Amino acid sequence: MFNPNVKVLGAPPVAVVLDWIDQYDGGHGPLIDLSQAVPGYPPHPDMMASLARAAADTASLGYGAIEGDDELRSAYARHVAGHYGGDIRADDVMITSGCNQAFITAIMAIAGAGDKVLMVEPSYFNHDLTLKMLGISSGYIKASAETGFIPSLEDIRAAITPDVKALALVNPNNPTGAIYPPDLLHEVMAICVKAGIWLLLDETYRDFLPPQDRAHDLFHSPSWRGNLMVLYSFSKAYCIPGHRLGAVVASPEAIAEMAKIMDSIQICAPRLGQMALTPMIDALAEWRAENSRQMAARAAAFQATMAKAEGWEIKSLGAYFGYVEHPLAMSSGEAAEVMVRKAGVLTIPGDFFGEGQGRYLRFAFANADIAVIEQIADRLNLLS
Amino acid sequence: MFNPNVKVLGAPPVAVVLDWIDQYDGGHGPLIDLSQAVPGYPPHPDMMASLARAAADTASLGYGAIEGDDELRSAYARHVAGHYGGDIRADDVMITSGCNQAFITAIMAIAGAGDKVLMVEPSYFNHDLTLKMLGISSGYIKASAETGFIPSLEDIRAAITPDVKALALVNPNNPTGAIYPPDLLHEVMAICVKAGIWLLLDETYRDFLPPQDRAHDLFHSPSWRGNLMVLYSFSKAYCIPGHRLGAVVASPEAIAEMAKIMDSIQICAPRLGQMALTPMIDALAEWRAENSRQMAARAAAFQATMAKAEGWEIKSLGAYFGYVEHPLAMSSGEAAEVMVRKAGVLTIPGDFFGEGQGRYLRFAFANADIAVIEQIADRLNLLS
Repeated sequence: MFNPNVKVLGAPPVAVVLDWIDQYDGGHGPLIDLSQAVPGYPPHPDMMASLARAAADTASLGYGAIEGDDELRSAYARHVAGHYGGDIRADDVMITSGCNQAFITAIMAIAGAGDKVLMVEPSYFNHDLTLKMLGISSGYIKASAETGFIPSLEDIRAAITPDVKALALVNPNNPTGAIYPPDLLHEVMAICVKAGIWLLLDETYRDFLPPQDRAHDLFHSPSWRGNLMVLYSFSKAYCIPGHRLGAVVASPEAIAEMAKIMDSIQICAPRLGQMALTPMIDALAEWRAENSRQMAARAAAFQATMAKAEGWEIKSLGAYFGYVEHPLAMSSGEAAEVMVRKAGVLTIPGDFFGEGQGRYLRFAFANADIAVIEQIADRLNLLS
Repeated sequence: MFNPNVKVLGAPPVAVVLDWIDQYDGGHGPLIDLSQAVPGYPPHPDMMASLARAAADTASLGYGAIEGDDELRSAYARHVAGHYGGDIRADDVMITSGCNQAFITAIMAIAGAGDKVLMVEPSYFNHDLTLKMLGISSGYIKASAETGFIPSLEDIRAAITPDVKALALVNPNNPTGAIYPPDLLHEVMAICVKAGIWLLLDETYRDFLPPQDRAHDLFHSPSWRGNLMVLYSFSKAYCIPGHRLGAVVASPEAIAEMAKIMDSIQICAPRLGQMALTPMIDALAEWRAENSRQMAARAAAFQATMAKAEGWEIKSLGAYFGYVEHPLAMSSGEAAEVMVRKAGVLTIPGDFFGEGQGRYLRFAFANADIAVIEQIADRLNLLS
């Protein structure tokens, strides 16, 4: 009675991991939750005030434009153009209900059952699961610890077969935290243009790069609209995941296709969050920059504590995540459960991110403040 | 470069219709918008207060359970069980971001590309478009003015071929307003059980039935979970479409499949609306009942005014919509544009709801208050 493409999939990965929390008796102090990426600081007070204003505004009760509120599309277009340079206009922006929805909307616009989409393995599980449930086949480009989990251009070229419609990259990467060099992205874009496929770039963690860093210059090419879609989440940088807001930057032609899909998925993204967010994009620029500077301090604290964790080794460390090899004589799934139960540390096992990831765990170190991060080594050493 | 299953579809129907508004010069008074179903009265003040409380509650900023907030699932389960009788529990409820999302989530759980889903024609366009973009084929069971747009059991039986996974019904119907008799739904359910297919019942307009009316007794059978999913929208009854909230009542087994899809579509429905809505389900029961009584008065006013519109004939009239035959010597799409331009009345053409609907227009009379409804005849008579 169920769709076999869905039935065969496991339960949602984050839900599986969160269900393990009950196994921890609290004996070593509060749970250290480094699983689902949720910045462990509150939103700016001005964001709370903006939400209150939007809640009182009856305009937030009504349907909005399918592509998103004009004001938010304009504000985000200005922000992206200001960050990256290049020509990005309001009608190049589509507002979605979070970045998973940005992905499924973009994917449905360009691929259907029987088509193929490439991604780098280890891969963000929701990308892989989304493709599988739609009957789209996934092609994996392996990335390994030896190359810092950066895929090779040769492997990308070799993976592009005639049934491939797109290459989906996550940068900064989830799960490894790896930051792809701008030159690599430039080359990858050239490969996609030559092959006539889309490059889908998921930049959910963009704001956690060092503030001066620009991840790429892809928007500088006047022809970016032909092959590029850049996905984003407002959840992390603004600490409002409950409001479910994301965006896609793509050509108006691509957005016209996505609008048909959005209409069927949910008509429009929730209005209150859109209205509250719009003035905050400019207003909170310095606050976001300060948070991204804090991320560098958290990364350093994570490196320092892991150096004291016996047998644990950071294999990749980036804007939000550390990808860590564990010393336990078991799969990463079993290791993650043991870590919760015996040490009160919740992470996501590498097994959830693809084949051959049984030695690794994803630590969302950016969730925790430094005082908590410093406790991680002692907790992990309980397992030796 | 685009998915042909999406590319072939027209622009979102409501957006097409709303784009016509600019053609009206306002010469005959304010536009009478009877297009997208949006109740023309404000939400209850207690709902506004509840939204303000939720906006100030930091819990609304965080991710929630994929299936929806436990409190809302419980409140809605109690409400549905109270309304219909029968055994409906919190874990039979899945919260979605509106009823279109309820539909796509339910459909993806049970059908994939190459499968077939049946619906009654004229049909709600988003159901049809959702199936098409997923590569699921649509089977149409014709309903005609002669039978009040009620489908026949024979036609339903004849349409069930081995590739059919589900029958989707909208009751009260969109676009015709037709209210399916409880006995018919009982028989349809028996047919679905016998055939081993799902009955998807979209009850977006349930609250606009007369308050004492119960649309069916399907939940009274202890085996309802095997074949039935009931979809609902909180948008209309609570006047909060901008918050994008809907629900599916289905078995926990079906919800486990839908949760995988929801995780990829948007992780969870927006939290603020969920939190604000929860206490309002019980608190606003009498207000909703009063609104549904108002609908009966609006329906009577619509009948009265249409009797004065020369050559126009109501073919079906129900809980929210009237389905009307127009006298103009043109297709319904052309007629709808002329009605906006020359008379300032916005409706949705029958052509948008399927084949052979060129004589009809959907009037969402429930959008307007009685003083406005009474002006419709004079406006339409401008066209003679």
